[in-house]
Amino acid sequence: MGIDLEELYKDLHAHPELSFQEVRTAGIVAGHLDGLGFQVHRNIGKTGVAGVLRNGEGPVVMLRADMDALPVKEATGLDYASTAMGVDHQGLEVPVMHACGHDVHVTCLIGAVEELVRTQQDWHGTLIAIFQPAEEFGGGADTMVKDGLYDRIPKPEVVLGQHVAPVPAGWFGLRSGVAMASADSLNITLHGRGGHGSRPETTVDPVLMAAAATIRLQGVVAREIAASDSAVVTVGQLHAGTKNNIIPETATLGLSIRSFSEPTREKVLAAVERIVRSEAAASGAAREPDFNYEERFPLTVNDDAAAQRVDAAFREKFGAGQVIDPGPVSGSEDVGMLATAAGAPLVFWFLGGIEPHYAKEFAESGRLPEDVPSNHSPYFAPVIQPTLTLGTEALVTAAREFLA
Amino acid sequence: MGIDLEELYKDLHAHPELSFQEVRTAGIVAGHLDGLGFQVHRNIGKTGVAGVLRNGEGPVVMLRADMDALPVKEATGLDYASTAMGVDHQGLEVPVMHACGHDVHVTCLIGAVEELVRTQQDWHGTLIAIFQPAEEFGGGADTMVKDGLYDRIPKPEVVLGQHVAPVPAGWFGLRSGVAMASADSLNITLHGRGGHGSRPETTVDPVLMAAAATIRLQGVVAREIAASDSAVVTVGQLHAGTKNNIIPETATLGLSIRSFSEPTREKVLAAVERIVRSEAAASGAAREPDFNYEERFPLTVNDDAAAQRVDAAFREKFGAGQVIDPGPVSGSEDVGMLATAAGAPLVFWFLGGIEPHYAKEFAESGRLPEDVPSNHSPYFAPVIQPTLTLGTEALVTAAREFLA
Amino acid sequence: MGIDLEELYKDLHAHPELSFQEVRTAGIVAGHLDGLGFQVHRNIGKTGVAGVLRNGEGPVVMLRADMDALPVKEATGLDYASTAMGVDHQGLEVPVMHACGHDVHVTCLIGAVEELVRTQQDWHGTLIAIFQPAEEFGGGADTMVKDGLYDRIPKPEVVLGQHVAPVPAGWFGLRSGVAMASADSLNITLHGRGGHGSRPETTVDPVLMAAAATIRLQGVVAREIAASDSAVVTVGQLHAGTKNNIIPETATLGLSIRSFSEPTREKVLAAVERIVRSEAAASGAAREPDFNYEERFPLTVNDDAAAQRVDAAFREKFGAGQVIDPGPVSGSEDVGMLATAAGAPLVFWFLGGIEPHYAKEFAESGRLPEDVPSNHSPYFAPVIQPTLTLGTEALVTAAREFLA
Amino acid sequence: MGIDLEELYKDLHAHPELSFQEVRTAGIVAGHLDGLGFQVHRNIGKTGVAGVLRNGEGPVVMLRADMDALPVKEATGLDYASTAMGVDHQGLEVPVMHACGHDVHVTCLIGAVEELVRTQQDWHGTLIAIFQPAEEFGGGADTMVKDGLYDRIPKPEVVLGQHVAPVPAGWFGLRSGVAMASADSLNITLHGRGGHGSRPETTVDPVLMAAAATIRLQGVVAREIAASDSAVVTVGQLHAGTKNNIIPETATLGLSIRSFSEPTREKVLAAVERIVRSEAAASGAAREPDFNYEERFPLTVNDDAAAQRVDAAFREKFGAGQVIDPGPVSGSEDVGMLATAAGAPLVFWFLGGIEPHYAKEFAESGRLPEDVPSNHSPYFAPVIQPTLTLGTEALVTAAREFLA
Repeated sequence: MGIDLEELYKDLHAHPELSFQEVRTAGIVAGHLDGLGFQVHRNIGKTGVAGVLRNGEGPVVMLRADMDALPVKEATGLDYASTAMGVDHQGLEVPVMHACGHDVHVTCLIGAVEELVRTQQDWHGTLIAIFQPAEEFGGGADTMVKDGLYDRIPKPEVVLGQHVAPVPAGWFGLRSGVAMASADSLNITLHGRGGHGSRPETTVDPVLMAAAATIRLQGVVAREIAASDSAVVTVGQLHAGTKNNIIPETATLGLSIRSFSEPTREKVLAAVERIVRSEAAASGAAREPDFNYEERFPLTVNDDAAAQRVDAAFREKFGAGQVIDPGPVSGSEDVGMLATAAGAPLVFWFLGGIEPHYAKEFAESGRLPEDVPSNHSPYFAPVIQPTLTLGTEALVTAAREFLA
Repeated sequence: MGIDLEELYKDLHAHPELSFQEVRTAGIVAGHLDGLGFQVHRNIGKTGVAGVLRNGEGPVVMLRADMDALPVKEATGLDYASTAMGVDHQGLEVPVMHACGHDVHVTCLIGAVEELVRTQQDWHGTLIAIFQPAEEFGGGADTMVKDGLYDRIPKPEVVLGQHVAPVPAGWFGLRSGVAMASADSLNITLHGRGGHGSRPETTVDPVLMAAAATIRLQGVVAREIAASDSAVVTVGQLHAGTKNNIIPETATLGLSIRSFSEPTREKVLAAVERIVRSEAAASGAAREPDFNYEERFPLTVNDDAAAQRVDAAFREKFGAGQVIDPGPVSGSEDVGMLATAAGAPLVFWFLGGIEPHYAKEFAESGRLPEDVPSNHSPYFAPVIQPTLTLGTEALVTAAREFLA
Repeated sequence: MGIDLEELYKDLHAHPELSFQEVRTAGIVAGHLDGLGFQVHRNIGKTGVAGVLRNGEGPVVMLRADMDALPVKEATGLDYASTAMGVDHQGLEVPVMHACGHDVHVTCLIGAVEELVRTQQDWHGTLIAIFQPAEEFGGGADTMVKDGLYDRIPKPEVVLGQHVAPVPAGWFGLRSGVAMASADSLNITLHGRGGHGSRPETTVDPVLMAAAATIRLQGVVAREIAASDSAVVTVGQLHAGTKNNIIPETATLGLSIRSFSEPTREKVLAAVERIVRSEAAASGAAREPDFNYEERFPLTVNDDAAAQRVDAAFREKFGAGQVIDPGPVSGSEDVGMLATAAGAPLVFWFLGGIEPHYAKEFAESGRLPEDVPSNHSPYFAPVIQPTLTLGTEALVTAAREFLA
Repeated sequence: MGIDLEELYKDLHAHPELSFQEVRTAGIVAGHLDGLGFQVHRNIGKTGVAGVLRNGEGPVVMLRADMDALPVKEATGLDYASTAMGVDHQGLEVPVMHACGHDVHVTCLIGAVEELVRTQQDWHGTLIAIFQPAEEFGGGADTMVKDGLYDRIPKPEVVLGQHVAPVPAGWFGLRSGVAMASADSLNITLHGRGGHGSRPETTVDPVLMAAAATIRLQGVVAREIAASDSAVVTVGQLHAGTKNNIIPETATLGLSIRSFSEPTREKVLAAVERIVRSEAAASGAAREPDFNYEERFPLTVNDDAAAQRVDAAFREKFGAGQVIDPGPVSGSEDVGMLATAAGAPLVFWFLGGIEPHYAKEFAESGRLPEDVPSNHSPYFAPVIQPTLTLGTEALVTAAREFLA
């Protein structure tokens, strides 16, 4: 029987959809869940899908995948590469790509529920499959919860999920406690005074202001965070101007900020605001910058006891040497919101997705070559196998650890 | 009889058109020229219009106005403010505004030809009115010449034109020799390596690279140009990134560069390239930046003898104290190409367009308050009168100086 | 009997000596060792002192303190504050201060050997007290070893030492494995071209070059080191120019670089060189920068088994809650060279030296207020008690753990 | 008869003296003046010398030379190069060099007074020779005036002087009106918070603060001064730190600022203070920077009528083509204070001092190759002849223009 997971994966990869626009993807997964006998809830949190399969008495276990893609122009050269365009939340037409591997997550979760249905005589309980929108942007998990997710489906007793990572296929990364950083997304508008490009003395140049702020922000991590602590301050967007010979009125900065504790987060945000305000003052800006905080990702914290159960199950299934503690990871996730809202423990792990021939180098050095593309790169291309098979088995293994 | 110049001005102001898209404006001016008895040539250099009026034997005198507007969002609050949108040369939809005052130029030239027609018994010769497209962007004068302008109309014996300027209405700025800077427009693409915003160590951050280059470019004018010389290096555009948590592959800089001699121009361009290449190297970029030179404006050089004739005529007409030497101006123009291609002398002057109540302060200090908006500002709003009347009279006066 | 440790401490604090100039300090400690019955070796590694006390058969245990002070102008306002001046290795006269607390180390080691002598009927073995010069600058441990330390005294079976730290007195910091960073000290000379301050266009400004390099170096830690790794790049010195209106020929940078593994160290050093070379190129320097590596501190790595013994002994002596794992510390030490050269395990710990009234805040948050001065600050002032008593007891306790 | 000017020049060059320390030089010139029959006043304004020669009724004409050298380490390789050391005003021992050519000025003035004495039957009036100290630093002219110069000697009716310049020997630069910039010397102390180099998070790094300020100051000239105006902002000194692994408490900047009008001067100074304060704020400094203004040089303004007389005399003597208008020069002088205090007109000109083989290139391009060292460079080496002869003749010619 069965769904051809490789075909499904290539199809999803070739048809990526931006956050809260995962209509085609949601339709596909809902169709599969329906075909497998799940009770299917559509359009929870705009485009989210929840499937519930009751299989006798027993624990309620949630498996979660995220569905959305990114505004990145794919450059992998794969024959199933995306050429899709989308319209982002600002109304701009942009290229779209599964540059973060959510297509892997969706495919593996479809594979896992199919396998769990196939073997449902071996376990008891309630299986929930969540296909979440907008993990990248917009707070999809939070939106599903606020849209009444737990009014429609049972609250899980454990939430399980995974993310494909730049680690050789065959390895899994799992740890107790803080697993991923908190993330804040901050948009800043710097106000200058526009004018003709030949007469800067009549203006307050916001391009220089933005450049100076960007440069100065490097000092936050370099000088204000202890070597024993960690943070990341990325200026992912800088936009100013419409014409080379016009000095514009404003410039905008888009920051992504990571930290691993609330005091450090507050320290970093305060330093960012201090620096940006000061650079506006250095330029002689008449108006203070605007700071607009967008979505925030909480710390992703794995439950100790539950994580140790999954860890033991993975070691038995895949080999003890294949499960590593990656340390706290600087990426962020909103999967934790599904667990927190249910009062349930979370276990979230990393699934290796890089060509296995890097395994030896990785095992020896703990590193991959610098030119291996990581998530969000236009060259990010997980190897299809054994990634899909192992990702499917991991979800099944973890779910079976909790299902009676 | 008569065209209501103020109504014409407000109409043009409310309906600005981007470079080479001046279809509506060209239609209006061609209609007026036609009605005044001119032989009208349309669509020279895409949207350019030339009108020829033969009025017996005598000199051939060209009056020139430029028609295009800018991708600026008007913020004047005027009741005739523009709300127009346009599509720029990159295909982006942008707001459009007559932020450089070309609507003043068009209106005054219509007024001037009307007056010269009305008084045509007083002079002899051939009057040419040129309504040029794309002064701001794309080389409209050059395009008209290359499209066979002087195959269709007689070559002028003098080329006359004006630009509204942030000087109180009532004043004119005129000088012999170098009147305006040469301008180069340079687009630079900086190549980094993209990746996830939380893992900068896997990337080469092009946002930081672009910011560092922008900061470092300030040193060209500050350190490499003598106090006795002049140049302007403006980064009018800086664009990078599509999402706060993605480090992009590339960043683009758009520069406008002004200089007043060829050796200085070459020195500045070499310094800009040296700095940008070095900042890419500082970031560890694997690929050199791309440098793409767009349109170039030549030096605008007024003919000594012809300029002195206009200067004398203006002093007599408007008062000796009302004509000042503004020194070489850092703005640029392509009007000189119309003269150079005809082998004719050029006289190009500045027309005051700011509220006359600043006159006293300006007369005493030679300056205006810093908050008076200059050309290309979204707040740029020439005072309608006496600007339109004086701009019309200036064209008539200069033309009559040369017409027999 | 007994030495008044508080008096000794205040005397040492008021009479600090720069690296390899610890003549007065060495004289004092040699006198005490002599008085206590030690066999005393002077002038090992210039100003170093080694004392050996043989007390029957048994293990050879080395206790080590460092003696040198820093070129810092004391600003504590203490009544025993230093007003001393010294001549640094460049021949400049500079103020000198025990801003790193080596006076605490010396005092506690004198206290410890006195106590061990007093109780020498309770243990057997050979006790070695090392008073090392030049920990701060110049490689004092390496110099002692190369000067034949282990030809003159027995090789130890364990090396023990401590450093006073900005942690409330009463706490100890101790960990197995990597305890402190490796440190590289790098001096860079940037070559510009000098000239008159009013004519920068005739020069290559090395001040701007140095400033740009310093700014750009912040990107090494901020962008090139993973959140899961650590490094510190400090520009501790920047010197350029002799007169405001002369643009100098050169500028010098003095860097201190910390890392916790050899691959990261190599990555950081390569990035530093890449950036500095590129900034010289951005300025159009005719000559490449010079890079001169000074002393290097190795990683300080505690032996697992020996560290666990000391940890257990401390928990029993001072209370389990008083011993914390501070994680790898970004400071550096050369004490490890004494152990490595002897093939002996090392145990090196941190001794709290801040007013105990911060204890509650520290216990709850793991932090101290930002205005508590840390080592190398001109305001650094360890609280005398209980610091001296606890530092003495710690050395005695650790030594007794190994002495039979 | 006669003084060997070349020998005198080489001797002065080999024995340079810092500002207000020109004891040897003053002794030499006073000896010559004495021998020539002048009434000699020594020690006016510390080390200044004034010589008065009354030669019948007639105008009082002052010739002025400055005597001091610079803290620059000579690198010319000349056989009469300086190896002198001096102690600067901060008490530091520094190398000293006549890097600004004041030795040329002194020599030519000795030659001129000798010639004027030799030919004194041809003129009538009073000749004053001023050998001024401390032109570079400390306000030597002002100090002479305040020390009662004009109580001791007659007030001149014209003040004449010259400066050797990087122009081929044979040329003179002379203009009416603004001849040289005003100059302000500004010392800034930036206050951070010191600490250990490995723990920047406990500090406020003043090195980064100073570097950021230096970088940002480039924007003053690059963005805030019109292309039609001029200013120079040079950071000639930046000093911070005593040891690579200590983050210091403070950093100091030494600025030299040039401008050509009082409004521009005020604008620049305000921008400098605004930027430096803002960069301190960006670093989170607890204390505002200190701004200490040192000596100020006024604008050097030549009297129109007197300058035209000298100009005519030079054209007749040296050839019309050899006298050029260099425009306002960005260097500064305090010679004007001698004229202002006397209420007398000033004429100050530039004397070419570069090898004459550059004459053709200079005549054609108005420039010299970039590698020709300019004043204040350690390689600055005026060609001895014809510089000394022409400089002597220029002073004689100008003086004779005014002496009856």
